[in-house]
Amino acid sequence: MIYADNAATTRMSEAAIRKMVSVMNENYGNPSSLYRFGQRAKEILEQARADVAAVINAEPREITFTSGGSEADNQAILTAAELGKKNGRKHIVSTAFEHHAVLHTLKKLEKEGFEITLLDVHENGLILPEEVAAAIREDTCLVTVMYANNEIGTIQPIKEIGAVCRERRVLFHTDAVQAVGHLPIDVKDQNIDMLSASAHKFHGPKGVGFLYVRKGIRLSNLIEGGAQERGKRAGTENVPGIAAAAEALKEAAAAMEANAVKLSEKRDRLIGGLKEIPHSALNGDAVRRLPGNVNFCFEGIEGEALLLLLDQKGIEASSGSACTSGALDPSHVLLAIGRVHDVAHGSLRLSIGEDITDEDVDKIIRSVKEVVAYLRGFSPIWRDLMAGKKAFIL
Amino acid sequence: MIYADNAATTRMSEAAIRKMVSVMNENYGNPSSLYRFGQRAKEILEQARADVAAVINAEPREITFTSGGSEADNQAILTAAELGKKNGRKHIVSTAFEHHAVLHTLKKLEKEGFEITLLDVHENGLILPEEVAAAIREDTCLVTVMYANNEIGTIQPIKEIGAVCRERRVLFHTDAVQAVGHLPIDVKDQNIDMLSASAHKFHGPKGVGFLYVRKGIRLSNLIEGGAQERGKRAGTENVPGIAAAAEALKEAAAAMEANAVKLSEKRDRLIGGLKEIPHSALNGDAVRRLPGNVNFCFEGIEGEALLLLLDQKGIEASSGSACTSGALDPSHVLLAIGRVHDVAHGSLRLSIGEDITDEDVDKIIRSVKEVVAYLRGFSPIWRDLMAGKKAFIL
Repeated sequence: MIYADNAATTRMSEAAIRKMVSVMNENYGNPSSLYRFGQRAKEILEQARADVAAVINAEPREITFTSGGSEADNQAILTAAELGKKNGRKHIVSTAFEHHAVLHTLKKLEKEGFEITLLDVHENGLILPEEVAAAIREDTCLVTVMYANNEIGTIQPIKEIGAVCRERRVLFHTDAVQAVGHLPIDVKDQNIDMLSASAHKFHGPKGVGFLYVRKGIRLSNLIEGGAQERGKRAGTENVPGIAAAAEALKEAAAAMEANAVKLSEKRDRLIGGLKEIPHSALNGDAVRRLPGNVNFCFEGIEGEALLLLLDQKGIEASSGSACTSGALDPSHVLLAIGRVHDVAHGSLRLSIGEDITDEDVDKIIRSVKEVVAYLRGFSPIWRDLMAGKKAFIL
Repeated sequence: MIYADNAATTRMSEAAIRKMVSVMNENYGNPSSLYRFGQRAKEILEQARADVAAVINAEPREITFTSGGSEADNQAILTAAELGKKNGRKHIVSTAFEHHAVLHTLKKLEKEGFEITLLDVHENGLILPEEVAAAIREDTCLVTVMYANNEIGTIQPIKEIGAVCRERRVLFHTDAVQAVGHLPIDVKDQNIDMLSASAHKFHGPKGVGFLYVRKGIRLSNLIEGGAQERGKRAGTENVPGIAAAAEALKEAAAAMEANAVKLSEKRDRLIGGLKEIPHSALNGDAVRRLPGNVNFCFEGIEGEALLLLLDQKGIEASSGSACTSGALDPSHVLLAIGRVHDVAHGSLRLSIGEDITDEDVDKIIRSVKEVVAYLRGFSPIWRDLMAGKKAFIL
């Protein structure tokens, strides 16, 4: 099998699994306990915090561990909203192609009287800092723009957006779930106030994430209870998972440059091959995209059928976000970059991992070509397109 | 070392670790993915849900997996509050000795205009169903009473409280974090509408919990985002952790009766030995308590010093809840059962595990006796007590 769905989740690294098992076996104490066994668990927790902080140039106390990226997104937005409410600022700027952990949280705030501006995304899957600047108002309390899109992999000009926000004194949060461990991040240099991450996207465990919050920003609790995480995130800390997450992130950071070079090369080979399929199009900018992300639309087919047939050929891929798969609606991301419904339905996301070979890439290209041709043979839409009853879009 | 802090957290069972590692290695797919590898992860998730449900006589769809007991408590209370708001019912009944995951969430709701009645707890650490009945008003939307207290281990008359709530058509939630895996639970027979649990309290992993919600009750999201967990709890499911939690719970359920018999016997031996210490008292009812819970107050000493010296003697224990350790305030639980500040400060919780031996118990008794005597030798309060300048309370 060729696993090409690393944007959905990744295989845990061997070192991360080893770390996790070792902590589960040897250091199962509660880090809030006073005896030495508990305090050793606390040390492991704080070492993990320091390790994670170092990778994004934050300070350890600026890192709050959560159960994942979604929780971190929710808490970041809630925090900005609470602060905004206190100052009578109830306007938030975001984009139309954020992850649902952001969009649905914003929707909830809308019901509570917040006003949300969702910026349009350009056809290449990018937004411009000046568009953010133009959307900021006197009453804006938050700008939240994802670092790299989970479906089409496009990378936003985070540093420049951060600069705009800092100048206008508006909090800036970025959902960096797809970026952390894959792209170099420096929260100080990039003017980031809050950042969300998820360990299972960088070969760490599921059920662990973290929220970076710049010191001086008073975090609001999403989960109330005990005094863990400086009183800002209740619940016994998942020390084994957190230690494994830090282990995976250190590994990912150390190999980041080499991986990026390798993956970009394979990605471009893959894009080159798939482009040969007639009436197809790459979704998102060809250059400003994650090293491992390929996302295409193929006219006249259904993405779901494509996936199932690719699976039979030994290729595991996605039509878009795993979080919404099974939904009949086309991807909100593809609609946001201007794909019409018919075309958006025929999408394929291949998110390749570091272990991919040229042979794998060639097999994917060959298989996608075969399956697309096969499916078009059955497609009434394709028949109409070929008969000239319908105009090609791609 | 004798680990006597199982109420803070437990060592993961070998079977649970094995299960976790196997799923991390072999089934790391995202359960929302459509290909077979993802669907296998989904099957593991649903098997875990069925296993967990079976242990408490619930239906699989009534189980929502969370990141732990605190999250489950938060979500349950939020759910009742949202439903209450819709019907203009903004009164909640709880008790003074709940876990902070409940109390702090109630405090937050109080700021939002809810009225909270916290029932007094009797000296034996119990509340009576008729007291709950008397506290319920026309506008009560929720009764939340913990199953077994995390500090003093007393077990509430859950079935009877549930019956009162059902009769009065008020939702009944129980924080069963200390009970699940240790006491037989039947949500149907016990009239429970919502129940919170945490895996690391029954030899499962940290970072996993679940919320049982009776079908027909519309759950509110605490974490917004993807459509996981029927859209009620966003975030990629922690499949390895959830599978390990189910494994641990099945084991705990299978051994529950035998463990309870063994632990109660050791517990009573321990209580008998510690009672010999002058001016000491068992906290909470001697019979209606968790099989593994022993909690004492010793007059004239500081609990924290007691713990540190016991640690040096190879005994790991707690003064109360790990979630609040380090806090200077005495336990709100001990205050709730009527202990005065001075006495409440000198508390010791021993929560023993299934592997404890009679020799361990005797060593604990001997060590506590020695340490209490030693500390009293330095204690100005003890000197005053002995000199008759101050009256003994215990």
